[in-house]
Amino acid sequence: MRHPSVVAALLVLAAAGQASADEGMWPPDQLPEIAKQLRAAGLRLDASRLADLDEEPLGAVISLGGCTASFVSPEGLAITNHHCAESAIQYNSTPERNLMKTGFLARTRDEELFAGPGSRILVTVEVRDVTGDVLGGLGADVHGKARFDAIEKRTKDLVAAGEAPGGVRCRVAAFHGGLQYKLITQMEIRDVRIVYAPAEGIGNYGGEVDNWMWPRHTGDFTFYRAYVGPNGLPADHARENVPYRPKRWLRVQPAGVHEGDFVLSAGYPGTTSRYRTAREVENAFAWRYPTTLERNRTWIYILERETQGRPEAAIKVARQVSGLNNTSKNYQGMLDGAARSGILPRRRAEEASLRQWIDAEPERRARYGSALADLDALVEHMIAGRERDLHYEMLARSSRLLDVAVRAYRLSREREKPDAEREPGYQERDEKRLRETFQRLDRGFDPQADRAVAARFIVDYAAIPVEQHDPVFDRWFGIEAERADGERVASRLAEMYAATGLADQATRLAWLDKSAAEIEASDDPFLQLAVALYPGDRAEEAREEELRGRDQELRPRYMEALVAFRKSQGRPVAPDANGTLRVSYGKVTGASPRDGLVYQPFTTVAGLLAKETGKDPFASPQALLDAVKQGRFGAYRDARLGTLPVNHLTNLDTTGGNSGSPTLNAKGEFVGIGFDRTYEGIDSSWSFDPEVGRAIHVDVRYILWILDEVDGAGHLLREMGLQSGMASRE
Amino acid sequence: MRHPSVVAALLVLAAAGQASADEGMWPPDQLPEIAKQLRAAGLRLDASRLADLDEEPLGAVISLGGCTASFVSPEGLAITNHHCAESAIQYNSTPERNLMKTGFLARTRDEELFAGPGSRILVTVEVRDVTGDVLGGLGADVHGKARFDAIEKRTKDLVAAGEAPGGVRCRVAAFHGGLQYKLITQMEIRDVRIVYAPAEGIGNYGGEVDNWMWPRHTGDFTFYRAYVGPNGLPADHARENVPYRPKRWLRVQPAGVHEGDFVLSAGYPGTTSRYRTAREVENAFAWRYPTTLERNRTWIYILERETQGRPEAAIKVARQVSGLNNTSKNYQGMLDGAARSGILPRRRAEEASLRQWIDAEPERRARYGSALADLDALVEHMIAGRERDLHYEMLARSSRLLDVAVRAYRLSREREKPDAEREPGYQERDEKRLRETFQRLDRGFDPQADRAVAARFIVDYAAIPVEQHDPVFDRWFGIEAERADGERVASRLAEMYAATGLADQATRLAWLDKSAAEIEASDDPFLQLAVALYPGDRAEEAREEELRGRDQELRPRYMEALVAFRKSQGRPVAPDANGTLRVSYGKVTGASPRDGLVYQPFTTVAGLLAKETGKDPFASPQALLDAVKQGRFGAYRDARLGTLPVNHLTNLDTTGGNSGSPTLNAKGEFVGIGFDRTYEGIDSSWSFDPEVGRAIHVDVRYILWILDEVDGAGHLLREMGLQSGMASRE
Repeated sequence: MRHPSVVAALLVLAAAGQASADEGMWPPDQLPEIAKQLRAAGLRLDASRLADLDEEPLGAVISLGGCTASFVSPEGLAITNHHCAESAIQYNSTPERNLMKTGFLARTRDEELFAGPGSRILVTVEVRDVTGDVLGGLGADVHGKARFDAIEKRTKDLVAAGEAPGGVRCRVAAFHGGLQYKLITQMEIRDVRIVYAPAEGIGNYGGEVDNWMWPRHTGDFTFYRAYVGPNGLPADHARENVPYRPKRWLRVQPAGVHEGDFVLSAGYPGTTSRYRTAREVENAFAWRYPTTLERNRTWIYILERETQGRPEAAIKVARQVSGLNNTSKNYQGMLDGAARSGILPRRRAEEASLRQWIDAEPERRARYGSALADLDALVEHMIAGRERDLHYEMLARSSRLLDVAVRAYRLSREREKPDAEREPGYQERDEKRLRETFQRLDRGFDPQADRAVAARFIVDYAAIPVEQHDPVFDRWFGIEAERADGERVASRLAEMYAATGLADQATRLAWLDKSAAEIEASDDPFLQLAVALYPGDRAEEAREEELRGRDQELRPRYMEALVAFRKSQGRPVAPDANGTLRVSYGKVTGASPRDGLVYQPFTTVAGLLAKETGKDPFASPQALLDAVKQGRFGAYRDARLGTLPVNHLTNLDTTGGNSGSPTLNAKGEFVGIGFDRTYEGIDSSWSFDPEVGRAIHVDVRYILWILDEVDGAGHLLREMGLQSGMASRE
Repeated sequence: MRHPSVVAALLVLAAAGQASADEGMWPPDQLPEIAKQLRAAGLRLDASRLADLDEEPLGAVISLGGCTASFVSPEGLAITNHHCAESAIQYNSTPERNLMKTGFLARTRDEELFAGPGSRILVTVEVRDVTGDVLGGLGADVHGKARFDAIEKRTKDLVAAGEAPGGVRCRVAAFHGGLQYKLITQMEIRDVRIVYAPAEGIGNYGGEVDNWMWPRHTGDFTFYRAYVGPNGLPADHARENVPYRPKRWLRVQPAGVHEGDFVLSAGYPGTTSRYRTAREVENAFAWRYPTTLERNRTWIYILERETQGRPEAAIKVARQVSGLNNTSKNYQGMLDGAARSGILPRRRAEEASLRQWIDAEPERRARYGSALADLDALVEHMIAGRERDLHYEMLARSSRLLDVAVRAYRLSREREKPDAEREPGYQERDEKRLRETFQRLDRGFDPQADRAVAARFIVDYAAIPVEQHDPVFDRWFGIEAERADGERVASRLAEMYAATGLADQATRLAWLDKSAAEIEASDDPFLQLAVALYPGDRAEEAREEELRGRDQELRPRYMEALVAFRKSQGRPVAPDANGTLRVSYGKVTGASPRDGLVYQPFTTVAGLLAKETGKDPFASPQALLDAVKQGRFGAYRDARLGTLPVNHLTNLDTTGGNSGSPTLNAKGEFVGIGFDRTYEGIDSSWSFDPEVGRAIHVDVRYILWILDEVDGAGHLLREMGLQSGMASRE
């Protein structure tokens, strides 16, 4: 492994050399290196100030764990997407007081609602390159699981050291597949409250029908407030907590943006896979997506069938169904997009060029010669177990009681070790989250549906190649060779669900405190199964860690070659998204996503009225309809459009996790909030096409107008340093 | 009733006064009256020549009965839509030689394939105003059924006189709901043959997915040839027949059209309802469409359920399913469109203005005073029987054996009268078509599915208000009050289907020649039921004729008021479509059908490639893909688009029946063929919105290129007076 500073230099050069303006989710510390492009594109801030996490705007950009938000007032007011706050809103809803439906506005701080256990605001306080700490001195002869274990150990040590002062959470994130490692330190605020959520008829306008679609008319935003203990430090939710006073918050620019304007997106994109090998791309599009899609459709079908005629159960599984629908639409879009854009042949051609480039010079041959071939061989190994991997994942996700049992027993076994040696996810620092997960299970759990899905997936599991089976699991469900007896599986599951106590929250939580011996002595069938599966699972885990260790060794070599190759072509090498803070830049612009079709950059309230049916998902609140029909837009009106904008498009490079990301103008002011991408660019996590892919944002003027004119939240406008009553002024 | 010449003058004035350029499906004889607008819009032909049925272009525009076509060579070559020729193509297909799939090209005249019994080409030879003949001297005291009978008698006499010389079919068509009547004389060519049909992967590219959609990439065209007897007169299909030599045929313009170009559409639009009363609009959108939609969905569900696991049966009902799907998408689109455009409140407001206008002047009050109120009262009467009307229609359409039995017995009874007194549809002139209908039944008939659908619709019928029931029908199926016993109905039907001989074509046809006494003596359960229902059906028919007679009296009065009112506003009053030859004019243009979205006027082969999946409905023939990928477009390339256009949009006013209509340029040359409308303008049959509604056409260059470069049909190009091999010339 080359010395980290060499790697850093390589990355810098590669960044500076990139020609295309718009691709790339840039880590803040790389922004100064692309300062020239940023300026040319229209940025009017100093790039090094933009890179500074202690400064505005990045100091105000926060993570919710899976979504992004940003502080917009000195008193901890934060804006994110309505869909990011959905479970918090549901947590506070009852059949009599359905806040999803009606929306919610706290008139005073006292009325602000706790977002529920597990809700978090993470403020990134430091990002430090720890490549040397993770890889330094790691011998070239340390391979596979040994390598994995060494990296895990160093990572845990870094995390433990980072968290020692308290009040923060740390993680070590790998960049470029392990070519670089960074320690991310985040303050974890645990008392998050809902300040304002629009009615579902605004926040989720268009619902499933419009999801991933343009034209769009969704007011997908919600306001949270961060609370801390009276001492200013993160604390569990408590009455006496006080609003958090962030160091930085965004200035909100009520003038909005116009077509062609320079914009930034800052947020926490989850995962992209832009540098995967052709074989990995092929595996994803020819096997993983279609197979998972088919499984998900079966899953939806069973959930709907099993809850038919049981409205309460149907409500319980509704979020799961909508999540599966969303994923299915996403996967289908990826498959459509990949077929259209020819991602696989393109990736193969790129790979051939890379090989050619390496072969062209003896020095390159010596340095990178076997990188691709070695990685490809490893990928084949990983693919060989794909059926098992998918089916275990499906079983764990679908049979939630089995998942609970497995985790409880695992925790009991990990607790037998010193904390530093425990498996990540089962350390002391993780126990609170585990408990919250166990608590939250009730919300979406219907035993009958759970059981029916598990039964189906077990029967499907039985059909995968027998050498990928777990003999203990097979014996438990009477699976022989590659055949399961559906009725036998179903009746076995019926016995288990009848006998288990894990469906009861208190019982379930109690097991989190039990010792391994106590669990082993339990007659709960799920716990018994978890205990029986344990040795096999550990062997399987060791197999995975062996592969992951080899990946940690081989992928950086491949990435180094790829980065050098792209650099030689002047092409961008922003690292793949990995859940850390990133900035992308671009402009407000429409697109011609398909032959014969043009997406205009803005939608307006005229289009909202045209979609309105009065029925879900196109049922706006009457107050909004009245204000639109009466044209009460005032200063929020866009002079060029002649009316009030609702959503706009940009060519910003974003992906899942960017939900809730603030859109910033050339001066770093808040001008909108990202919430989706267009269907045609849905495969952008694999391949960014600036011609086709577009991010969809709620326009700041629509947000402010709703607060001001529709929902009477003038006090929030004033808290953001704006005037209220602007809808009656031109 | 006012004298016809007054009416004609009124219509002329109304036409001349119209301001909007693009609404209206104009009867040819009205074209000279809008000559000024036509010239201003870009027509470079003399309007009176355009109106002349003996001249080019209208002399070349022909009807297929439900679709339009046009002659494009002096030897009877005619172009229409692929979807209009679908049943002819299927008629010539076998599992071994599936012409739908492969397409078909006759290399010589000998290879041209008979389109099947019932296929027709109708050449309009004369359109004559017969308002005076139909209404002249009809006393103001003749109401209801008496009026209906008188008009029917005069109509039949006109038809009989018109058809006396032989070789032609006549019909009397009502315009403006009976304000004007015209006798249409058409030569009926009965030997129609398929010359060329592209593969389904061209002609139906996009299939159900793209139906009503833009962007579109469908080569929806097919070539027929008209054949007549050696004496030049229409004849049944026979070996010795010769190609018909039409008086006129269209010149094909291979240069195509560009954005903004003036265009005409000439064809046989079926039905529009632009002048219905608000109450009728409400009934359609609040009751008829949603109710029929729900029935159709049930119908589709049953057809699919009953043919599951029976591939041959599934193929049999496939066209029915696709037709029902198409209707459902259409109805859903109408409902969506009506909700969006607010057709009902708009119509109500218009009606209020009409009332105001009438009330504003004593003379108008005297003339039109009760027109609207009288019609409204009648409409209420008609609506009162809507459940029964719909259910009888559903039963007749779904239980095809009952329909056959009813028709056979009706014919036997009508045959007892002199021909001139027989019911239209059961006269001597109709017997051939009845026989063809009886023959064709086999193609899409599956007894099990037929029975299941009938069972469901009978149970549904039972639930309609009991006063709308037929007691004979009720007794037959054991229906008491508003309740049917589903199992009893099903077992009764099972007995009937087991015992009937009507499923056999020869038996079925034989009954067409039997006397009423013979049918009455039959023990075939369907015939027995038909005989039992006969008296009740006649009473029902008399009720309907009473209402229709009143409509024939009241609607012209209302239309006269409406026309005069619109004339006073300078608004257009082209009569509603009624299956007669019409011309509309407009231009090649995109649209912004929804906020944030623009439809560009052309699609190109680039978009086709992007849609291509290799799987139905996006599976182009390899020859086409190769030619596209190699860019072999030559002279067919559009210089502005830089590639080959596929489809284009116009703002032409068209509706069902315009399928296959030639698009003509300013000089009347063939530049494309209409085949669909965009989803957003689907309710244009009720309300034409020039901003939103667009007609979709196959571009002439795509047609010629496919013939020339993809399917090697150079001989057809030469027959149309064009050169072949143009794809290799720029």
